Amino acid sequence: MGDERDTRSLPVGVFDSGIGGLTVLRQLRQALPRESFVYLGDTARVPYGNRSEHTVVRYARMACSFLTGRGIKVLVVACNTVSAVALDMLRVEFDIPVLGVIDPPARAACRLRPAGRIGVLGTRRTVSSGAYDRAVKRADSRCEVSSSPAPLFVPLAEEGWLEGEVPSLVARQYLAPLVERSVDALVLGCTHYPLLIPVLESSLASLATKEVPIIDSAGSVASEASAFLVQRGLGRPAGGHSDLRFYVTDNPESFTRVGRRFLGDDLDPRAVELVDL
Amino acid sequence: MGDERDTRSLPVGVFDSGIGGLTVLRQLRQALPRESFVYLGDTARVPYGNRSEHTVVRYARMACSFLTGRGIKVLVVACNTVSAVALDMLRVEFDIPVLGVIDPPARAACRLRPAGRIGVLGTRRTVSSGAYDRAVKRADSRCEVSSSPAPLFVPLAEEGWLEGEVPSLVARQYLAPLVERSVDALVLGCTHYPLLIPVLESSLASLATKEVPIIDSAGSVASEASAFLVQRGLGRPAGGHSDLRFYVTDNPESFTRVGRRFLGDDLDPRAVELVDL
Repeated sequence: MGDERDTRSLPVGVFDSGIGGLTVLRQLRQALPRESFVYLGDTARVPYGNRSEHTVVRYARMACSFLTGRGIKVLVVACNTVSAVALDMLRVEFDIPVLGVIDPPARAACRLRPAGRIGVLGTRRTVSSGAYDRAVKRADSRCEVSSSPAPLFVPLAEEGWLEGEVPSLVARQYLAPLVERSVDALVLGCTHYPLLIPVLESSLASLATKEVPIIDSAGSVASEASAFLVQRGLGRPAGGHSDLRFYVTDNPESFTRVGRRFLGDDLDPRAVELVDL
Repeated sequence: MGDERDTRSLPVGVFDSGIGGLTVLRQLRQALPRESFVYLGDTARVPYGNRSEHTVVRYARMACSFLTGRGIKVLVVACNTVSAVALDMLRVEFDIPVLGVIDPPARAACRLRPAGRIGVLGTRRTVSSGAYDRAVKRADSRCEVSSSPAPLFVPLAEEGWLEGEVPSLVARQYLAPLVERSVDALVLGCTHYPLLIPVLESSLASLATKEVPIIDSAGSVASEASAFLVQRGLGRPAGGHSDLRFYVTDNPESFTRVGRRFLGDDLDPRAVELVDL
């Protein structure tokens, strides 16, 4: 395992509380077509967004143990709640590089709008954790953050209510306070939200008087992960079959059904395995 | 404990996956003002509605062990998902009367509309379990059931979106197929839904051409539980202080905050205790 050639051939681990992280996996696969991936969705205990910090840390530890036990070369925590509260713990306790989903979009937003006001939509817990405020300040100390919880976006995305009156009304309600504070860019601080980008774009267009770019975690995480593997010389050698496996802690059928909304037809039900953490 | 007088003084146990069961507790307290209650909300693992049957049965067993270990005289399972899939197991494995939330509203609907078509709204799992179809047939074999999953009602209720355009649009979408099948009564097959009764009433009034009574679990369960305690001679003797305690598996602060939407100011934060099942 310590052998460098072995390490390079190992898959990239992707962990989320449920299926939202599939939006990140989708972009990772596009950026890194040669890599193999294992995805763990803790579907028995989703959602993490309203759980206490103590509980989220405990679940994250169990998930990371599971994936490192199966052999991965890097862990992408594709869950904003876990990235917000448990990333430092994972980096201290596990002997593996760990990438989160909060710093990459914060950096991307600050690059697009230097010294600007960065708007953030996220779950209640992600917003109240202040993780995006800190990430934006790290990326550009002149930037300011305005954030707003958008909890109904998760069930809307999972139920496939992605267009029409209801998602538009909900989007306008969540965006209004950010537009009022005249944000210059909008970060989607939850991996479910990219499914609602069309609705968010048209709502923003009707509310805001300037162009407000929308930045999701998936794209920025994928490009940073790609750069990271190159820098560390951890990219998978050419040749051989790149593999895609899924582990879930409950309900593989529903994971496959809803997951296709996020990942497309690449989600082969035969690659989805039920496990106990 | 086997002593009849001791048993009568024990509290009534109420179990739900989260906070929805508080709508049932509220009605139980009104119907049984002399009784003490202990409420267990498995807030670390809520929601059960999309979990597999195997997982729901396992969680229900742990919850019932916890409550019987603390001493209760009867268990009210104030959760439709658990009532739909785990009630028989609980009755076999635990030496205590167990009341669910599915048969009482089914019986009430059949009494109001004999040989009628009973509409049911519930979570995806409750609807697909067919539990209401069976309960209605048991109550009145001439009745027919039309059911429809209404998953967005849970987050709307928890977020307090109880009136206005969004809940009205969602309600109309969920009700339309039931109204099309000309239902004679509407059973709310999820303990969260009573918070949306005003919206459901006005949506039904605008869609349906006849009067469609709405039956929730809370009222019918409370009156059946009350009758049950009298029949069995299990009512609490007069005098003494009636107690109200809450156990949750995560996030007591959020339980108290959101729970007040369901139970009112009787939810004293000092009576809420964090436990591990």
